[in-house]
Amino acid sequence: MSTVPAFKRLPRAVREQQMLDAAVKVFSRRGFHAASMDEIAEDAGISKPMVYAYLGTKEELFVACLHREGTRMMQAIAGAATAPDLPADERLWRGLKAFFGFVGAHRDGWAVLYRQARGEQPFAGELATMRTRLVEVVAGMLDHALRAEGREIAALDLEVVAYALVGASESLADWLADHPEADPEKTATRMMNVAWLGAAQLLHGVTWRPPAD
Amino acid sequence: MSTVPAFKRLPRAVREQQMLDAAVKVFSRRGFHAASMDEIAEDAGISKPMVYAYLGTKEELFVACLHREGTRMMQAIAGAATAPDLPADERLWRGLKAFFGFVGAHRDGWAVLYRQARGEQPFAGELATMRTRLVEVVAGMLDHALRAEGREIAALDLEVVAYALVGASESLADWLADHPEADPEKTATRMMNVAWLGAAQLLHGVTWRPPAD
Repeated sequence: MSTVPAFKRLPRAVREQQMLDAAVKVFSRRGFHAASMDEIAEDAGISKPMVYAYLGTKEELFVACLHREGTRMMQAIAGAATAPDLPADERLWRGLKAFFGFVGAHRDGWAVLYRQARGEQPFAGELATMRTRLVEVVAGMLDHALRAEGREIAALDLEVVAYALVGASESLADWLADHPEADPEKTATRMMNVAWLGAAQLLHGVTWRPPAD
Repeated sequence: MSTVPAFKRLPRAVREQQMLDAAVKVFSRRGFHAASMDEIAEDAGISKPMVYAYLGTKEELFVACLHREGTRMMQAIAGAATAPDLPADERLWRGLKAFFGFVGAHRDGWAVLYRQARGEQPFAGELATMRTRLVEVVAGMLDHALRAEGREIAALDLEVVAYALVGASESLADWLADHPEADPEKTATRMMNVAWLGAAQLLHGVTWRPPAD
């Protein structure tokens, strides 16, 4: 990316991570609107002008936090679920366990970053991009499982099923963030019981049809 | 509530509905932040001071819109699903058909009201209240179906399954709002295929268990 020697780049990268660590902590504690750049700079042990110079306005800093946390989460999920030789239910289970494990370990961050980001532009755009990637991952997994059974369903139907599964997982993650006593792995098992039993039926060609009116 | 005669109260109720109709339209068109009270007053054919006097600040007006639309939606769902003698899948199907039908008929309103409300206080509180009621309705329906089969599961498990189903439905409603060409009833059928096939297994005592590590 650049020809700046590594010994000069390293401090900047390290400093940026320190600032993001501080920002995630302060945003999680105060919420986006009440969080101050003063507190973030103080927590990071860096001057406020330096925070602005490195990571921009409070909005840009929040987007950078979202992006870093979201990327970490996606890596945890994709890393767990990427094992094409495993059966579909085990891949889904590993992905869900990684997802709920991540949320369980970052309950405060999830509660603020995710809930804040959901409704407000430009944060909602960043979140929508992550959701779209997650839907693609889930749809790809289902498609792979279907093909292994010698079947396929229309791309639109796959997308809709993936949206439903991602939405159900988001909803349970939100529930988990509000229940500090709840166990992430048990939550993943519950989600499998909602998601997999139905998905397995679909994979085997069983479908539900509306009653004749 | 008051001793004001009906002939005096009626115009106020009618006017409030006109203002809410105008507000929903303007919020849907402009988004919350860009919507102006001038435009809402003009659209309702009422002076701006009158809008403030009747329904308060822009924030309060937005909450009133959310509340009215949310109540209408809940009534549509509850009205469709309230038939204790019908089998569980048919009740769930009717509820989902009503829900997606409502969203499909109000795509613009859903996109703005719901997405805006999701992230911002105090709107998020109003939405969380509606979601909690919806979770209770779904959990009650599942509990009823379980008892009809002579079985029961822990209240916590029921709540979690209901959260997952409500989250999956919200996610698909969001998808529907973005796809004007998609058919609401077909979306309800897709949701049944994700939700019901799995739920039916659970109702019959089939559960998924994690593989031994």
